[in-house]
Amino acid sequence: MATSRTRLRRFPEHGSHDPADVAAVLDAAFVCHLGVVRDGWPMVVPTTYARSGDTLFVHGSVASQSLRAGGSGQPVCVTVTLVDGVVIARSVFNHSINYRCAMVYGVPRALDGDEKLEALRCLVERIVPGQWGYARQPSERELAQTTVLALSLEEASVKISEGPPDDGQGPDGELAVWAGVLPLRTSPGTPVADPSLAGGITLPAHLAGWRP
Amino acid sequence: MATSRTRLRRFPEHGSHDPADVAAVLDAAFVCHLGVVRDGWPMVVPTTYARSGDTLFVHGSVASQSLRAGGSGQPVCVTVTLVDGVVIARSVFNHSINYRCAMVYGVPRALDGDEKLEALRCLVERIVPGQWGYARQPSERELAQTTVLALSLEEASVKISEGPPDDGQGPDGELAVWAGVLPLRTSPGTPVADPSLAGGITLPAHLAGWRP
Repeated sequence: MATSRTRLRRFPEHGSHDPADVAAVLDAAFVCHLGVVRDGWPMVVPTTYARSGDTLFVHGSVASQSLRAGGSGQPVCVTVTLVDGVVIARSVFNHSINYRCAMVYGVPRALDGDEKLEALRCLVERIVPGQWGYARQPSERELAQTTVLALSLEEASVKISEGPPDDGQGPDGELAVWAGVLPLRTSPGTPVADPSLAGGITLPAHLAGWRP
Repeated sequence: MATSRTRLRRFPEHGSHDPADVAAVLDAAFVCHLGVVRDGWPMVVPTTYARSGDTLFVHGSVASQSLRAGGSGQPVCVTVTLVDGVVIARSVFNHSINYRCAMVYGVPRALDGDEKLEALRCLVERIVPGQWGYARQPSERELAQTTVLALSLEEASVKISEGPPDDGQGPDGELAVWAGVLPLRTSPGTPVADPSLAGGITLPAHLAGWRP
């Protein structure tokens, strides 16, 4: 969906509420920033998440104290941002960041029982596919210590800013100043084994081929 | 500063309020998540920032409507997170993320005049050193369209989680399951020139050597 801003720019910042666009951004990362209100103050904490259909599962342990303190029905904002590059313009004013950002508003529901277990499976498999069946499964006690929130994607939107700066067509385009994009990418390094790892345990294929 | 949790773990999650620790995390990134309260709901938006001494300058244009709507004295939470790797444990429960996270709470002040100009210089020079003197300076009109917030670092803290998983010493250490860290790193790609760039303008050295 185009915003009013889109029509004014050659390389627009795209805004969309299309579920497919929202899903594409959410599925490209696994760390979100979870915002809650605590005693009238905003609190923003990083945590992991995974999308399953039109639901977002959010690992809520880090914010569970705040969410409980406010009772049920506490609104949250979950924001996921991927930084793709720095946009170098002719003028300081037109510098910007190329990014993909999804924002989800809603009142989450804390999961229990089989729903919680399935959400944890989604979280683990999203971040490291193949790991759920490889690692030891959670015990009842471990499950009880974990908070997983489910949030509807009904009130979600994305913004995507991409491409070169937009000051090339105006008077600044005459300046002898370089303009373009300095791209950024996130890539995996070489896996580091736990120094206390018992001998003879080799890196399994699903971890050797892991990419974020 | 050690938290109670630190003493329980071999490779602890470090918490600190030491200004040097806060500065080290803040100076390692340039995109933050700015949290504000808007009509009782949390709103979390990504934006750029730069530290100068014990002050954080935050590019506030994206949130300026919300900040103005709430009048002056609106509290914010600025959170900066660097994701360093995925911690692979023997048990699902002990999986985690290695990260560095800084959180700053406070009531920001919108800057004007020379203060705003100097803060913008800090923002640009932090993200792309050498760029402030290279690009065209902001006009009065452009300055008026830009919101820059100043936030004291008085109420700031960091948490750093690093190292291997901590289940190697317990009963799970006997499992024939690989454990360790899958590191992540962010690196620059090859600069992409604006297709509308005039001929004969070469990439200057301060952009060619840029790293995030």
